Amino acid sequence: MDRSAEFRRWKAQCLSKADLSRKGSVDEDVVELVQLLNGREEFFTTSSCAGRVILLDGGINGFKVQKQNCCWLLVTHKPCVKDDVIVALKKANGDATLKFEPFVLHVQCRQLQDAQILHSVAIDSGFRNSGITVGKRGKTMLAVRSTHGLEVPLSHKGKLMVTEEYIDFLLEIANQKMEENKKRIERFYNCLQHALENEAVTNSYPREKIKEQKKSSYSPKKKRNPETAHGRCVTEENDKELENDDDDDPGVSVIIFPEDY
Amino acid sequence: MDRSAEFRRWKAQCLSKADLSRKGSVDEDVVELVQLLNGREEFFTTSSCAGRVILLDGGINGFKVQKQNCCWLLVTHKPCVKDDVIVALKKANGDATLKFEPFVLHVQCRQLQDAQILHSVAIDSGFRNSGITVGKRGKTMLAVRSTHGLEVPLSHKGKLMVTEEYIDFLLEIANQKMEENKKRIERFYNCLQHALENEAVTNSYPREKIKEQKKSSYSPKKKRNPETAHGRCVTEENDKELENDDDDDPGVSVIIFPEDY
Repeated sequence: MDRSAEFRRWKAQCLSKADLSRKGSVDEDVVELVQLLNGREEFFTTSSCAGRVILLDGGINGFKVQKQNCCWLLVTHKPCVKDDVIVALKKANGDATLKFEPFVLHVQCRQLQDAQILHSVAIDSGFRNSGITVGKRGKTMLAVRSTHGLEVPLSHKGKLMVTEEYIDFLLEIANQKMEENKKRIERFYNCLQHALENEAVTNSYPREKIKEQKKSSYSPKKKRNPETAHGRCVTEENDKELENDDDDDPGVSVIIFPEDY
Repeated sequence: MDRSAEFRRWKAQCLSKADLSRKGSVDEDVVELVQLLNGREEFFTTSSCAGRVILLDGGINGFKVQKQNCCWLLVTHKPCVKDDVIVALKKANGDATLKFEPFVLHVQCRQLQDAQILHSVAIDSGFRNSGITVGKRGKTMLAVRSTHGLEVPLSHKGKLMVTEEYIDFLLEIANQKMEENKKRIERFYNCLQHALENEAVTNSYPREKIKEQKKSSYSPKKKRNPETAHGRCVTEENDKELENDDDDDPGVSVIIFPEDY
């Protein structure tokens, strides 16, 4: 079977199955995006989470959260209110941790080139930890990931280690991250539409004719460094763009090509 | 210029430059790993950080950390002690946040196949957020990333929001993550050596002869699911393996192929 036919078979097989997540459905904030991708012959989504605040209770093995002893006290994809967290924390008897987990999406791609386009869109939309996986048999996946998390231990052996005032403060930050995360999803959707339209143009007209057009209309790829054109090895600035939300990073040992790789 | 020659040129150019990170040198805990990679013709490292605890002071724009207003109060690649954090926090006048940032490494690879081997080693060593980037001109990078972070807001507008007891508790967790991170780097080094040795065997003997050998000696690829052999679409368990340290994930909408892709 050729690659395209094999991909179509995988896609049909995958999309015909029930959604086996506990929730059993795609999160509201990413339904459109998932539909856009699954409506294209070169993609299908295999998992997604729009972003959420979760409170989990870890086991009481020192501080170590043991997978098998960990249980979920609260999960919400909407802004989180203090009272819900306080109530949920009362059920904790181990080490409870509050997390904000940003948008994550896995997309299987027909070929590497399709994954590259999606990867570029993801990076441009702010999902800087995105990356491609290529399996031994050529199965190509793009994982869309953000740097934009939060992970805060709140209790130890069932005892709350912070004040209610702190939880209020923390939730304001978590909810703000949720809001920013939502904007990035929208940006991703818009950039993707734009990139796919451009791809369609590229594929239906002779390349020479659309070169000019593409230059002016392609999704706004952020220029990472003015020295790009010279292909010089420079500074940590570029690396930060890839991995880090924060500026002024003294610790990463880096020599990186700033080119539009 | 052919791809191999171009890669050699990039590598020579990159490694001849000074290390332009502020620290100006590779972190102690990853020196051996960086040397192992740079000693191979198919790889060179472009950036690395062994893992660190950092305390940063964000701007006072609501809660939003603005890049331009953010400054670093403390950075350490060693276990962190409370007194250092307390002293550093006194200098905060915005919203200070303590983070544990795990090991991160960027490796430019000669070709996709080389990146795939490295990616497989990274995943097997516990760096589940690793991924490949392939540029328009074929430049192939692997980013090694972990899910194993911590990000905890500590003060608001210069006012400490938690107790010293909490900071003690938090640092114990951060230091434990640092320790676990170090183990994963060692695991990565060992798995990489193993995989590269196997590659050498693969390249110097006829494929048929080494098939048997490879089966028994290849780095221990974790079997993600017993149903792998049937290629069925199943459950969120596989996705968690990719993205999440925690068990029992009710929120990720997922249909994923568990195959050894």
